[in-house]
Amino acid sequence: MSDLRAEAEALDGKDELAAKREEFVLDETVYLDGNSLGALPANVPGRLAEVMTHEWGELRIRSWSESGWWTAPERIGDRIAPLVGAAPGQIVVGDSTSVNVFKAVVAAVRIARDPGNPSGGRDEIVVDATTFPTDGYIAESAARLTGCRLIPVAPGDVPGVLGDRTAAVLLNHADYRTGRLHDLPGLTAAVHAAGAPVVWDLCHTAGALPVGLDEHGVDLAVGCTYKYLNGGPGSPAYLYVREALQPRFDSPLPGWNSHAEPFGMRAEFEAADGALRGRVGTPDILSMLALEASLDAWDGVSIDAVRAKSLALTDFFLRCVGAYVPTGRVESLTPAAHAERGSQVALRCEGAGDVMRRLIEQGVVGDFRAPDVLRFGFTPLYVSFGDAERAARILARTLA
Amino acid sequence: MSDLRAEAEALDGKDELAAKREEFVLDETVYLDGNSLGALPANVPGRLAEVMTHEWGELRIRSWSESGWWTAPERIGDRIAPLVGAAPGQIVVGDSTSVNVFKAVVAAVRIARDPGNPSGGRDEIVVDATTFPTDGYIAESAARLTGCRLIPVAPGDVPGVLGDRTAAVLLNHADYRTGRLHDLPGLTAAVHAAGAPVVWDLCHTAGALPVGLDEHGVDLAVGCTYKYLNGGPGSPAYLYVREALQPRFDSPLPGWNSHAEPFGMRAEFEAADGALRGRVGTPDILSMLALEASLDAWDGVSIDAVRAKSLALTDFFLRCVGAYVPTGRVESLTPAAHAERGSQVALRCEGAGDVMRRLIEQGVVGDFRAPDVLRFGFTPLYVSFGDAERAARILARTLA
Repeated sequence: MSDLRAEAEALDGKDELAAKREEFVLDETVYLDGNSLGALPANVPGRLAEVMTHEWGELRIRSWSESGWWTAPERIGDRIAPLVGAAPGQIVVGDSTSVNVFKAVVAAVRIARDPGNPSGGRDEIVVDATTFPTDGYIAESAARLTGCRLIPVAPGDVPGVLGDRTAAVLLNHADYRTGRLHDLPGLTAAVHAAGAPVVWDLCHTAGALPVGLDEHGVDLAVGCTYKYLNGGPGSPAYLYVREALQPRFDSPLPGWNSHAEPFGMRAEFEAADGALRGRVGTPDILSMLALEASLDAWDGVSIDAVRAKSLALTDFFLRCVGAYVPTGRVESLTPAAHAERGSQVALRCEGAGDVMRRLIEQGVVGDFRAPDVLRFGFTPLYVSFGDAERAARILARTLA
Repeated sequence: MSDLRAEAEALDGKDELAAKREEFVLDETVYLDGNSLGALPANVPGRLAEVMTHEWGELRIRSWSESGWWTAPERIGDRIAPLVGAAPGQIVVGDSTSVNVFKAVVAAVRIARDPGNPSGGRDEIVVDATTFPTDGYIAESAARLTGCRLIPVAPGDVPGVLGDRTAAVLLNHADYRTGRLHDLPGLTAAVHAAGAPVVWDLCHTAGALPVGLDEHGVDLAVGCTYKYLNGGPGSPAYLYVREALQPRFDSPLPGWNSHAEPFGMRAEFEAADGALRGRVGTPDILSMLALEASLDAWDGVSIDAVRAKSLALTDFFLRCVGAYVPTGRVESLTPAAHAERGSQVALRCEGAGDVMRRLIEQGVVGDFRAPDVLRFGFTPLYVSFGDAERAARILARTLA
């Protein structure tokens, strides 16, 4: 056995999260694509069978009240809250990430322009130019509908473009391609210094590392639940609205679920109090309750322990790659500094699309991002150090 | 046995859709709330178990291509299409009805203002004042974001307010309270005569009667799938965009799923061709594939036969109510004329909230709409004439 294989075994032996792997359906595959679709938590099929056969099949309409369907968006939001450093009452689950980005950015512009805000003339939306594209497309639509100009810049350049025309800033916590973690506390403070609200997209960090939404004074945040949170394919996204801003959260999608009295069926809209303002239409119950069940995997898990293991895993994988892969065949795009690293490793590699196909054929599943990136996600709840070593070894063999 | 019970038995014996009932999970309850949440189709739990354990659990990320997840929104849209009189390629499934109303109304305004359209200065959105409230709230938001004024009027008064300032009209095909069916062909023609596009909300008619979207030249339509289509609690809604208008459909929610090249991850948005423009973010696969399975119940079913049974059921129920319930205790709000009737019966009744609670205790499930309406929905696929007679009989006993 190589030294690194022995080291992997020792690290797995000491891993306090190792037992969590049993709570997921996994096989001999080395699954390093949990940053795209998290693995199936073993309890989900049973729970969803009960939802279908008992709650829908037998109770039917009564389940909206008796089975707690109606309150699922805020109840599940409160379960996600501790994972992203939020006190209860600030997160609702529902809709896709794109739709939540739209709500958040339009609402942010309206907050910036609030009559109570002394700075007027705010007409610029700053967006992370390196972001997952949907955020940019939606921000552009929000800009068009609110009479703003879109300013796409790299996150590091954000402070330089902020000013009294800034209406909102939309940033990704981690770059989906390189895995680079951006400076959420510092950038949030910079946006606030310019008198504007900031929207953070947590798709690539929630469930992988501490986010600290409340602690860092984040105004609005969105994220998906199917990556590190393992909620299932296309499971509903969430929206965080800081408690202090909730009275001023003015949604561009004021569906009946965000009404103060949804069953009053009143012709006039009156927004509900609190995070409920972020709801829109009837929640998608099957997907939502699958997500709720999937969150059981977080019971008793400290997000700090998750972060420690995530960094140990990516460090160890990079060491194995360095040891096994011939020099010059791959180049890591993922920052070496822990403070700048998410929970994935991105390797630039010639012919990356073909290399990833061959890795998948050999049971190592990551993904390919055009034009030349191999992306490996490390989900601390179920990826082992043995997985990391094996992935690097098979990568080296594939490139040999 | 009363004459009406004998008649119900005879009608059930001749019912060509009677065997469909076996495809749903039902018990001794008389379920007349399928216009709020359709009953569970018996094949759904098995299909969704396979999606969870095999497609998500074993194939994981590969299912986006190998299990057809990625193309589900348009594939399922094409299965709904014949039920609403649409040729393929015009419907996508996803998001809630409210979100789809937003897409449709904003897109309609943009179509009305298209540079190719000779009439400028269109700044009025006409909305059905009797509509399910969410449509009005969302239309108001669309008006605010597009610089329009909202004009709420009863559907019958729509022609009188149309003109060269009309930018879009949003109408419900059936009134959710009374069950009144509006004149889709006539109102569509009137809106077109004013040079504007019309958006129809089909929540209360799709799956209950022929809609004829293509035949009547409807521009845009939306609808939920959890009422007469039995897709499950909060199952995804759909959006119809008439083929000829698709090149001009300019979505206010241009998520990455509506991009011409979604995996190109390009910073610039370029809309896909066709109905795909109505997609937004990652589709909610569990709910979506439950819906897809639920649509199997429509195999071999003619929507004309459904309509014929629906009218026969509501006629028969009204006759039983007339025969059993003491005069003056209830008043039907549902039009007697077939051309003006959807697939529900609404009875005004003193103390309706309490009456409905007592009906439910006795196994007759309808719903209550404030302030004084008992609402009974008749889903032709699984409601029998025996159900209708029994519901009227228990209603009479409850009011006695």
